[in-house]
Amino acid sequence: MSDHVYKLIELTGSSPKGIEAAIENAVARAAKSVRNMRWFEVTGTRGHIENGKVAHYQVTLKVGFTLED
Amino acid sequence: MSDHVYKLIELTGSSPKGIEAAIENAVARAAKSVRNMRWFEVTGTRGHIENGKVAHYQVTLKVGFTLED
Amino acid sequence: MSDHVYKLIELTGSSPKGIEAAIENAVARAAKSVRNMRWFEVTGTRGHIENGKVAHYQVTLKVGFTLED
Amino acid sequence: MSDHVYKLIELTGSSPKGIEAAIENAVARAAKSVRNMRWFEVTGTRGHIENGKVAHYQVTLKVGFTLED
Amino acid sequence: MSDHVYKLIELTGSSPKGIEAAIENAVARAAKSVRNMRWFEVTGTRGHIENGKVAHYQVTLKVGFTLED
Amino acid sequence: MSDHVYKLIELTGSSPKGIEAAIENAVARAAKSVRNMRWFEVTGTRGHIENGKVAHYQVTLKVGFTLED
Amino acid sequence: MSDHVYKLIELTGSSPKGIEAAIENAVARAAKSVRNMRWFEVTGTRGHIENGKVAHYQVTLKVGFTLED
Amino acid sequence: MSDHVYKLIELTGSSPKGIEAAIENAVARAAKSVRNMRWFEVTGTRGHIENGKVAHYQVTLKVGFTLED
Amino acid sequence: MSDHVYKLIELTGSSPKGIEAAIENAVARAAKSVRNMRWFEVTGTRGHIENGKVAHYQVTLKVGFTLED
Amino acid sequence: MSDHVYKLIELTGSSPKGIEAAIENAVARAAKSVRNMRWFEVTGTRGHIENGKVAHYQVTLKVGFTLED
Amino acid sequence: MSDHVYKLIELTGSSPKGIEAAIENAVARAAKSVRNMRWFEVTGTRGHIENGKVAHYQVTLKVGFTLED
Amino acid sequence: MSDHVYKLIELTGSSPKGIEAAIENAVARAAKSVRNMRWFEVTGTRGHIENGKVAHYQVTLKVGFTLED
Repeated sequence: MSDHVYKLIELTGSSPKGIEAAIENAVARAAKSVRNMRWFEVTGTRGHIENGKVAHYQVTLKVGFTLED
Repeated sequence: MSDHVYKLIELTGSSPKGIEAAIENAVARAAKSVRNMRWFEVTGTRGHIENGKVAHYQVTLKVGFTLED
Repeated sequence: MSDHVYKLIELTGSSPKGIEAAIENAVARAAKSVRNMRWFEVTGTRGHIENGKVAHYQVTLKVGFTLED
Repeated sequence: MSDHVYKLIELTGSSPKGIEAAIENAVARAAKSVRNMRWFEVTGTRGHIENGKVAHYQVTLKVGFTLED
Repeated sequence: MSDHVYKLIELTGSSPKGIEAAIENAVARAAKSVRNMRWFEVTGTRGHIENGKVAHYQVTLKVGFTLED
Repeated sequence: MSDHVYKLIELTGSSPKGIEAAIENAVARAAKSVRNMRWFEVTGTRGHIENGKVAHYQVTLKVGFTLED
Repeated sequence: MSDHVYKLIELTGSSPKGIEAAIENAVARAAKSVRNMRWFEVTGTRGHIENGKVAHYQVTLKVGFTLED
Repeated sequence: MSDHVYKLIELTGSSPKGIEAAIENAVARAAKSVRNMRWFEVTGTRGHIENGKVAHYQVTLKVGFTLED
Repeated sequence: MSDHVYKLIELTGSSPKGIEAAIENAVARAAKSVRNMRWFEVTGTRGHIENGKVAHYQVTLKVGFTLED
Repeated sequence: MSDHVYKLIELTGSSPKGIEAAIENAVARAAKSVRNMRWFEVTGTRGHIENGKVAHYQVTLKVGFTLED
Repeated sequence: MSDHVYKLIELTGSSPKGIEAAIENAVARAAKSVRNMRWFEVTGTRGHIENGKVAHYQVTLKVGFTLED
Repeated sequence: MSDHVYKLIELTGSSPKGIEAAIENAVARAAKSVRNMRWFEVTGTRGHIENGKVAHYQVTLKVGFTLED
């Protein structure tokens, strides 16, 4: 197991609800085409403002998944 | 539209409720004097601890707004 | 008061609920053995993914506390 | 002269022409309201893509200017 | 629209002409296989020197594009 | 008190005497127009050299102050 | 040759033997599906500990390869 | 001697007098409970402002000490 | 299991043999007093030179271990 | 060829024309005394402002050259 | 004047007296062999501890000087 | 001894054998012209890939040496 190789991809998820929802949206979307995702790491948190209020959060994350042999 | 110039200001919002509430407090306060805010970027997340519990969150963010001609 | 010395320790808290819960778990656990905690600073946000969903959040934070004389 | 105090502001300029034009747009816009600008430092270079081509460059810079006594 | 998920890829473009040409070469090449590119961010600027002159510029950039549902 | 919002400004102070004097010059100059300053953070220490000696120190700092309601 | 465009992917290789073996495992696994790899850059070195000993090394690296026309 | 293992701890010292005094306060306080301290590295310089003047400096430093066998 | 809290400590190991040996020396020394170590992350690689040759490697690493309830 | 050793020097070039001209000025000046320069990497882009306009660009770069045996 | 090229060298000065003395020692030593030094930038502040007290400060700085034509 | 001044140079060593060999090649080459080298710090680890395998490692390091009076 210790010789596994992982690939990391970088995604930006967004949500009007908050930071966790933006992360979960990104992971859910990636799960449509990527199997064996193992971990994520947040690399940036941004957002859009409209009419003086936060309109939605945008969280960028790296996601690591196992490359099968 | 592509020649717009934006100014960035840096704010720290705080809230006992959580990270999103701290961000939204900062944006709401800035909206009293700044128009045309477009985006924000979180540059730091800190907080105060009292009696062994998180008393409030402090989130520092850069906010960009359009400079009108 | 201005001559106080603080020590910083680094902790990783985790929670399936979200980022604030992971922070609060870490602070609550530290409170069992550390007195006089004053502030924290988030230094990383990661998490584990299982079956295409976020299984839990892992937040690393530095916690500062006063060293008593 | 060595006791001067400078203030730094952060701006994002944009231009379809290139990086220098985006910087110069930001400086020209700031010159409308800020006197005594002395230097700038680029802190980020980004841009927008439309139809598979760079639509415009966005350069973020810090600008330092002398605070008059 | 606020629930879009973006993927980021990292590219290095090169050109003997300059930094913008290196960026535009990278974007043009990516446009052959990636649709819906939205923005880029420069993460590094390097180059090769031959016979005491800059032979070509190499610019590394992250490109974000919308993942379709 | 935990819902306060702070604004951060960035200043460069200079002094031939040393680093603390450069910081204190910047804070004193800012105090002419900014009320309720609470903390500072040093983000860079530079200086000018003339005739092989340090002519003056230049310290860049972020200063946080409370935005009144 | 100076107009080549490169793509960078990020991988984590692991090995109980050491850092070079972890790098070489990642490159060897990538070679199964990626042609024209040219260079790598290490972006992080971590590892797992079991029973008070290093169980395996995990090295994260960016790998650049030429995009063919 | 080359197989020594060192532990690093992180401290914040403070002093109204200046940066060196804040460092020396932190080291003096640590010396009450830690033996064999060898070096320090400054990781941040901050301070508090009261009534428009620097009230005290806060310097964060890592301190390395030899772990005895 | 997802509510575990980890503590991170920072160590510098050294060895004339190489980087892995320096890491393993640090982990072995820590194992004398710390149980339940789970992972490490290298934060710096340095070394001493004597008579024009590398005398020993010094690797700084953070080590995470589970805090028992 | 794989055992070559390179030395890196750091230079700041300046030019009123733009970023590439500043880089090329630095490389041309270095070529007067350094042979076998191979690559450069930009580490900072700054500039001077006079009368509300960019007076010249200042680009800092590391230049690597082969040390001959 | 705007086409000047500068070279940067990196030095570590040390002094038992404090940070400014360590900087000034480094600049004074460099002045023995380098002419036309213009500015410095501090890149690190460290020190040695002996018998529970700061024995001397070590400050690393980059120094820029004009390359004559 | 505490008033010594050190100069830092930056080198890239390479070797097909591994990271330590690349470091030692750089130090050995520098020893031909530089005396009194004291320490090094690794600032980057890269490498070249040929035919899907690591062809050689390239390690960039800063080397500090005492400037004699």
